Amino acid sequence: MVISLRLPAGGYDITVERGCLQKAGALFNLNRRVLVVTDSGVPAAYAETVAAQCQTPVVVCIPQGEESKTVAWWEHLCRKMLENGFDRTDCVVAVGGGVVGDLSGFAAAAYMRGIDFYNIPTTVLSQVDSSIGGKVAVDLGSIKNIVGAFHQPKGVLVDPDVLDTLPARQIANGLAEAVKMALTFDADLFALFETVNPLDHIEEIIIRSLQCKKAVVEEDEREGGVRRVLNFGHTVGHAIESTTGLSTFYHGECVALGMLPMCSDAVRARLLPVLKKLNLPTDYAGNAAALMQAAAHDKKYSGNTVTVVTVSTVGSYALEKWTPAQLTARMEAYYG
Amino acid sequence: MVISLRLPAGGYDITVERGCLQKAGALFNLNRRVLVVTDSGVPAAYAETVAAQCQTPVVVCIPQGEESKTVAWWEHLCRKMLENGFDRTDCVVAVGGGVVGDLSGFAAAAYMRGIDFYNIPTTVLSQVDSSIGGKVAVDLGSIKNIVGAFHQPKGVLVDPDVLDTLPARQIANGLAEAVKMALTFDADLFALFETVNPLDHIEEIIIRSLQCKKAVVEEDEREGGVRRVLNFGHTVGHAIESTTGLSTFYHGECVALGMLPMCSDAVRARLLPVLKKLNLPTDYAGNAAALMQAAAHDKKYSGNTVTVVTVSTVGSYALEKWTPAQLTARMEAYYG
Repeated sequence: MVISLRLPAGGYDITVERGCLQKAGALFNLNRRVLVVTDSGVPAAYAETVAAQCQTPVVVCIPQGEESKTVAWWEHLCRKMLENGFDRTDCVVAVGGGVVGDLSGFAAAAYMRGIDFYNIPTTVLSQVDSSIGGKVAVDLGSIKNIVGAFHQPKGVLVDPDVLDTLPARQIANGLAEAVKMALTFDADLFALFETVNPLDHIEEIIIRSLQCKKAVVEEDEREGGVRRVLNFGHTVGHAIESTTGLSTFYHGECVALGMLPMCSDAVRARLLPVLKKLNLPTDYAGNAAALMQAAAHDKKYSGNTVTVVTVSTVGSYALEKWTPAQLTARMEAYYG
Repeated sequence: MVISLRLPAGGYDITVERGCLQKAGALFNLNRRVLVVTDSGVPAAYAETVAAQCQTPVVVCIPQGEESKTVAWWEHLCRKMLENGFDRTDCVVAVGGGVVGDLSGFAAAAYMRGIDFYNIPTTVLSQVDSSIGGKVAVDLGSIKNIVGAFHQPKGVLVDPDVLDTLPARQIANGLAEAVKMALTFDADLFALFETVNPLDHIEEIIIRSLQCKKAVVEEDEREGGVRRVLNFGHTVGHAIESTTGLSTFYHGECVALGMLPMCSDAVRARLLPVLKKLNLPTDYAGNAAALMQAAAHDKKYSGNTVTVVTVSTVGSYALEKWTPAQLTARMEAYYG
């Protein structure tokens, strides 16, 4: 299946197909110098399969984990390209999850002020969400994605076969973002989560999630308006991430926790069993004041208010401007 | 005088006026957090004058010189904004030359994926050329501008009064870029250089140069086509910079040297006396092979050819694709 994302400055195709890792050379233009970026948690065979389809591959493997999403690693990737004589016509391919995609995408965005970038996401989280849309960035200390760019990929390959090697917790982590898409956009997808075993329907979930995201990105590439809905669960989720560190919860787990206070009681009553079915956390013994302090660094802040996303009916959402006091009160009410 | 640069995604005004440093608060929106970036070579009074017109200024002074155009200083600026609670609605103002503009412009481009940027150039070079057009970047080692972005300023203030504190060599350095604009676009401006003392006509030279550059940027914001003409003298000039280091020659001096081999004999015969009048260098005892090695890192490379700009009639130019062998031969012929 090919999902075509259309943007004013040209769009790109997202190919969702079992085994399509083998087709990278046919679907992307790899007949040039190619920086293939992967991480130590991704089976080496995936990047090797891609590199074998490149004319002149340079493979860089970064240590797995958010700790690698730094300015230092970003500079390392840029220097690798420079050392290997990359010019404006060369390209970068990410083979990994969100960290690899964000980091290498920002290297592609900045190297010579922008070269081609392709993304081959290998986690559920990046397959359903972060691999499309063009948001690339690195972290500064504990503050996520604070320096980056909008740099759309030239193509995305989603091969559900690569998910077979993922641990169950990583799969659930990614499905949290699919639940987010379902809650805000797609009531039928949410019903699917309620009625079936999501693991048996992973391809359908990926495709429906990508279709939700595609529609949002096409309408609002630079996150000036509707795209902010994709931050549902993330205002509080990022605050939990910053406060507890990523050794406690994965990103998707924080999003799961972050969605709960932003739902109506009726929606929360439907969300809780879905999260439990996915083994996602539903309880967080957090301190609302500490969370608020972390949330104050959020990019969704503008002046003295933060734009939050709320869901009072499954499949729809509202964007609301809240004061820090309002957000603190809501977190206190939910997390106690 | 106001020059309005128009671009598809909105444009901006370039105000050229003696004393306009005092009008920053009136002409820019500084009613927010403002990172004011300057360097140790710029009279502190300039940045102080601007800071006094900001609601919440944070002033950072970097060490003067190309050595500060690093990833480390760029990260420092981003961290300064983070520490001071800058959000997407805040902005950066550069008060300095090309290094300050490029470095702080790239910080503005990347912080939260892009915040507003204003430029107040204080050198001839940045006033006639680098302050407009949106090219921002930092260096990696000796390779200039290798990581960066296209991030247009929201406004530019050109105050010719600030040039009064510049040493003569710095002024000549900047005028080299104005000579470049004249040779490629504006025969009348070139005639002005031939007939008058440029120092007595600095405002006219600035305005005419900016008008040339504005026309090019409006036609080709991302340097896909005609904008490459602005690199006239820079392919060889950057190679001289990389080879000799900036302690020997300033950027504009390298451009002066770099233009000479790319002119026809007739144009060179007119260019030489102009460069001499400006005390710009006209002789370089260079090694063509070493220069070619440095030039191979140039962003103007694409595959196995480099796009060079040649001038055979004053006020016009040609874009030509040369092989490394052609470029080496031309440099050998000129520099011996």
